[in-house]
Amino acid sequence: MQAPAVHRQTRPGLRQRPALGAAMSTSVAVLGATGLGGAVAAQLLYRHPAFELKHVTARGEAGRRLDEVHPRTRVPLELENFDADALDVEAAIVAYPHAAAAPVVAALRERGVRVVDLSADFRLRDRAIYEDWYGEHKAPEIFGSAVYGLPELTREAVASADLVANPGCYPTATLLALAPLARAGLIADVIVDAKSGVTGAGRHAKDFVETESNVQPYKIDGHRHTPEIEQELAALGNQVTITFMPHLLPLAQGELVSCYVTLSREAGDDELVELYDDAYAREPFVELRDGPVGVQEVRDTNYCRISYVQDRRTGRLIVFSALDNLWKGAASQAVQNLNLMFGRPEGEGIR
Amino acid sequence: MQAPAVHRQTRPGLRQRPALGAAMSTSVAVLGATGLGGAVAAQLLYRHPAFELKHVTARGEAGRRLDEVHPRTRVPLELENFDADALDVEAAIVAYPHAAAAPVVAALRERGVRVVDLSADFRLRDRAIYEDWYGEHKAPEIFGSAVYGLPELTREAVASADLVANPGCYPTATLLALAPLARAGLIADVIVDAKSGVTGAGRHAKDFVETESNVQPYKIDGHRHTPEIEQELAALGNQVTITFMPHLLPLAQGELVSCYVTLSREAGDDELVELYDDAYAREPFVELRDGPVGVQEVRDTNYCRISYVQDRRTGRLIVFSALDNLWKGAASQAVQNLNLMFGRPEGEGIR
Amino acid sequence: MQAPAVHRQTRPGLRQRPALGAAMSTSVAVLGATGLGGAVAAQLLYRHPAFELKHVTARGEAGRRLDEVHPRTRVPLELENFDADALDVEAAIVAYPHAAAAPVVAALRERGVRVVDLSADFRLRDRAIYEDWYGEHKAPEIFGSAVYGLPELTREAVASADLVANPGCYPTATLLALAPLARAGLIADVIVDAKSGVTGAGRHAKDFVETESNVQPYKIDGHRHTPEIEQELAALGNQVTITFMPHLLPLAQGELVSCYVTLSREAGDDELVELYDDAYAREPFVELRDGPVGVQEVRDTNYCRISYVQDRRTGRLIVFSALDNLWKGAASQAVQNLNLMFGRPEGEGIR
Amino acid sequence: MQAPAVHRQTRPGLRQRPALGAAMSTSVAVLGATGLGGAVAAQLLYRHPAFELKHVTARGEAGRRLDEVHPRTRVPLELENFDADALDVEAAIVAYPHAAAAPVVAALRERGVRVVDLSADFRLRDRAIYEDWYGEHKAPEIFGSAVYGLPELTREAVASADLVANPGCYPTATLLALAPLARAGLIADVIVDAKSGVTGAGRHAKDFVETESNVQPYKIDGHRHTPEIEQELAALGNQVTITFMPHLLPLAQGELVSCYVTLSREAGDDELVELYDDAYAREPFVELRDGPVGVQEVRDTNYCRISYVQDRRTGRLIVFSALDNLWKGAASQAVQNLNLMFGRPEGEGIR
Repeated sequence: MQAPAVHRQTRPGLRQRPALGAAMSTSVAVLGATGLGGAVAAQLLYRHPAFELKHVTARGEAGRRLDEVHPRTRVPLELENFDADALDVEAAIVAYPHAAAAPVVAALRERGVRVVDLSADFRLRDRAIYEDWYGEHKAPEIFGSAVYGLPELTREAVASADLVANPGCYPTATLLALAPLARAGLIADVIVDAKSGVTGAGRHAKDFVETESNVQPYKIDGHRHTPEIEQELAALGNQVTITFMPHLLPLAQGELVSCYVTLSREAGDDELVELYDDAYAREPFVELRDGPVGVQEVRDTNYCRISYVQDRRTGRLIVFSALDNLWKGAASQAVQNLNLMFGRPEGEGIR
Repeated sequence: MQAPAVHRQTRPGLRQRPALGAAMSTSVAVLGATGLGGAVAAQLLYRHPAFELKHVTARGEAGRRLDEVHPRTRVPLELENFDADALDVEAAIVAYPHAAAAPVVAALRERGVRVVDLSADFRLRDRAIYEDWYGEHKAPEIFGSAVYGLPELTREAVASADLVANPGCYPTATLLALAPLARAGLIADVIVDAKSGVTGAGRHAKDFVETESNVQPYKIDGHRHTPEIEQELAALGNQVTITFMPHLLPLAQGELVSCYVTLSREAGDDELVELYDDAYAREPFVELRDGPVGVQEVRDTNYCRISYVQDRRTGRLIVFSALDNLWKGAASQAVQNLNLMFGRPEGEGIR
Repeated sequence: MQAPAVHRQTRPGLRQRPALGAAMSTSVAVLGATGLGGAVAAQLLYRHPAFELKHVTARGEAGRRLDEVHPRTRVPLELENFDADALDVEAAIVAYPHAAAAPVVAALRERGVRVVDLSADFRLRDRAIYEDWYGEHKAPEIFGSAVYGLPELTREAVASADLVANPGCYPTATLLALAPLARAGLIADVIVDAKSGVTGAGRHAKDFVETESNVQPYKIDGHRHTPEIEQELAALGNQVTITFMPHLLPLAQGELVSCYVTLSREAGDDELVELYDDAYAREPFVELRDGPVGVQEVRDTNYCRISYVQDRRTGRLIVFSALDNLWKGAASQAVQNLNLMFGRPEGEGIR
Repeated sequence: MQAPAVHRQTRPGLRQRPALGAAMSTSVAVLGATGLGGAVAAQLLYRHPAFELKHVTARGEAGRRLDEVHPRTRVPLELENFDADALDVEAAIVAYPHAAAAPVVAALRERGVRVVDLSADFRLRDRAIYEDWYGEHKAPEIFGSAVYGLPELTREAVASADLVANPGCYPTATLLALAPLARAGLIADVIVDAKSGVTGAGRHAKDFVETESNVQPYKIDGHRHTPEIEQELAALGNQVTITFMPHLLPLAQGELVSCYVTLSREAGDDELVELYDDAYAREPFVELRDGPVGVQEVRDTNYCRISYVQDRRTGRLIVFSALDNLWKGAASQAVQNLNLMFGRPEGEGIR
């Protein structure tokens, strides 16, 4: 067949971003924009009314346009190599793998750039635990300087932070599920059976043929999100050693955690309702539901849906929590954090 | 197990729509809002800066909230029974099945409401052909009064129309693929091999077990979109009898049509580039691409992606066109039409 | 388009079943052969070297051929209405829903037909518990007369039984996972997080659009397989109240249960190896594995794959068990039981 | 967590293959047994009553057991490196990629081993055309010595062949669809719109995230199966230049071709029925059907399902053909060929 005629991609309508008062727009960059989380972050910031996306970087794909690599983003910016000195921005989302992220974050912080980091490099506060699970830390001088950025739990600290560690996807789902109980010290023991599509399972995601029509556990010898969850439950006042077991499902996006909680004391319906309502009734991005919750309901959104049921026969409380690992579990939560850091309405650009 | 504690769904953040200058907002209703197309239309209009969604109706589910039936819409409005007299709106999107739509549209038109109708009831201009494929028409008095609303082809007529017949999903994809050729009278013969997910296959969509890991043709004795496509190709100046064959794929949303065109005369690369660029280089929602196009790239968007290749061995031109049947093939195109009818920017609320 | 030429389906090759010594073949029927479990049972028995499938019945589809309703079975037998007196067979698999099954089973037993019943009607031994979960029993006169047919646990009793209650799919997976521990009295507490494709979720399976790209719990107020599992664990010597929670996944066939066991006392690696090897090293249809097990590995087979891992931090033992709910969880296990009842090699016709 | 106890996989039942009269068993090898086609071939031959699978080879995985790499095969044989001299077998299935296959086939033929080759290396009879599409041939000395092994069309030649070129998956589906017409010289022109799951799309199959919920054409500049189909249509007496266009669907196994045939003269219903019945009424593995055919109906089988419909408006004949690319399109068809070559019943071991 003949080589097809070559068209440049011409979508002039998209090139005009919403007009902004120049004074109010904050310049931002997304580093590692060709990973799945980074791409969604770029997609959201490119259309955000208060931020101007000036740079997108990617190792090995510099020169291509982001919308060629990830058509769904419709971000026609050219990918660049990372160069800290060339990044004349006020803020950045760093979407590098752990270990690779730390030195990049350090370089940005040195230059005064405010950062939301999607990796695990700054989430843990105990360096020994970090190095146990992830190996040597690559920017020890700023280890411990980050705020854990789960807005529903740490909103105020985020607002004034210069470095925000964006939570892991499973920790986001699990902590939102358990926080109302943890604050009341109600968790004596908890098993978290986690179910994720392939984008949430990282390197353990397999190819189509192995994944389709399948379900299986993975990382059965221990998942790195375990200490992160335990750290934040303790920060809420409930020290507990958890069992966490992830499973890979045949879907692209979405995570459901089923948390089996042994309560430290009896808790009646009214108390539970009050705990969960107090925590979330005014939260714009947490949806309390009765009955089953599913990941399809939150796909491509910043919402987390939570429901619970008490097993009358055993007294156990079962809490379900569903979110999109690329959105509330990563990129849209990063933008939610950026909104807080720059005094914008928390939900701007992520609805 | 114990009955779960009853929470009301509390998402106060969502209840505040973007503040509008009251003067500029046009009141609208979506009739048949619990069908898949209607639900997306309601979702888009509820957040649209220039329209105020005042009513959503559904036969048999009045009293429930739309976001209970379709959580992804996040439209907390209560579903009502249809009552033409109670609908104090300036415009409506009607998302009823064919035959059921006609009398509802007639009632609305009598009351001066401007209508975009998603059904097939007003798309055909020859009543004999309509009744051949669909049976008796239920509002013959207004048959023929509609404008066929494919904005890229009929933008000006839509702007002043009171009744717009929103195109079928397959016709939208096929006509956008073929219009540049049809205008030049280049189509001697065309075979359209159409591939759709289950929401595009209507009643022929089967349950999960029969659909998963499967692909099969359906309606092999003739699909009702055939005369609609032929009518509009003729309107563009190219009378042709087409072969149209739909297939059902294991996905929820998205349609790809592969159009095999025998050209009426030779056409070189330059001519083809010029024809397609003239047609679409300035269109905000048509994306010309080289190489394969896939439905995933347009899911949940108003975009239609088109590419073509010429088979040097046979001279045949093969045009591919991908869209989301619920969006550009139905609901977001309906909003695009509404925008035109009310003088709004064409892409408002559907980006 | 023209009506297609009418062909009768002509696959003469398939009509000749494997030649059998007439003396050795046992006549069988499958009642309810158009349900998914019944169809697989018919498919297996039609090709079984020792059974002759004489009748297949289905309410409401009498007169059609089974291979028209379920092409994959390739069983060209005509479906009949059920008539106990017309069934001149020595054995039957009954694949009716619970409550509907009981009277049919009773009628067959009266006529001396040996029965494997796929429903829940004869699995429980305590009638009060049955009626608590399923309502009134429809053949109380034979309640309690069945043998619970999980060959790996109850092989000898099955061999001489006239009525075998085929286990539920979840109980098969769970009991095979836990039996080695239960026999040793090692289970102090267990949470079973169960994950199933739509054919295992019964009436709760939803349509393609709601199921695709989704995962959600269902029957969160209590699943009927709970008392069945508890009964059989007790029969193995381990009385325990379990927590059982099923989830619906976007796949057609297959179930994985993840069992979180709190041990009643410490158990070392060696003891666990010995317990599982003693139980299954010589079992043809249980596959002990290290590492993750997935349902794809057992699809369309009678195998159950089991692996376990001990959480060093909590001491908890996590046992995974995967099977195909339509095969080992229903139809092929029913044939395995029939093989035992009629002195055939246990794996005949199901490899 | 603790390292799990190490079990060896113990399935003694499976290790005993069906007892065979030693005299009747033919020794075979599968070379390239870890590819998807090779794995299915090994699975079928391991349980075949007339062949003894003595060797399975794989580059780079020697020493592992095949059932570890592909659990579904349940073939507990150890993978070896290929060594032509060590292969004391009478026959072999070669499942190497094209170009890699040719020299291996030549080495085997030199040693008198009868071969079925799954690659494209011996399918074409015109070396110039081969080298146009595939590059230099790596065993030119035996180019042209193979029989094209599509049993329904070339049964007799296969029976006496020493080297059989197993057809491509798309050619198998397409040729079975069109052979009855080609023999009558009825094809003036044909467009083949092919739809395949990822295992049929070879290197063009993408990962889960890019494939799921997607459909797109691939190899739009020309697919290598085109000349193979044209060659065999010509061999049946119908010279024709075809248009062939493949598409990738979100499923693992299965292919459907939709063939749009412009007839060279009018053909009535009766003639078409007679042509197709003459061709296939007695074929055990071709199923003529009225109405739509789907790939799910033939998954994991050696069947090809065919139906057709005539478009009254254009006179065009549309023929649909569905098969499993790994079975009838590769491995089970190879065993069908082996059965013919060694005088076994054609369907032995593949039902």
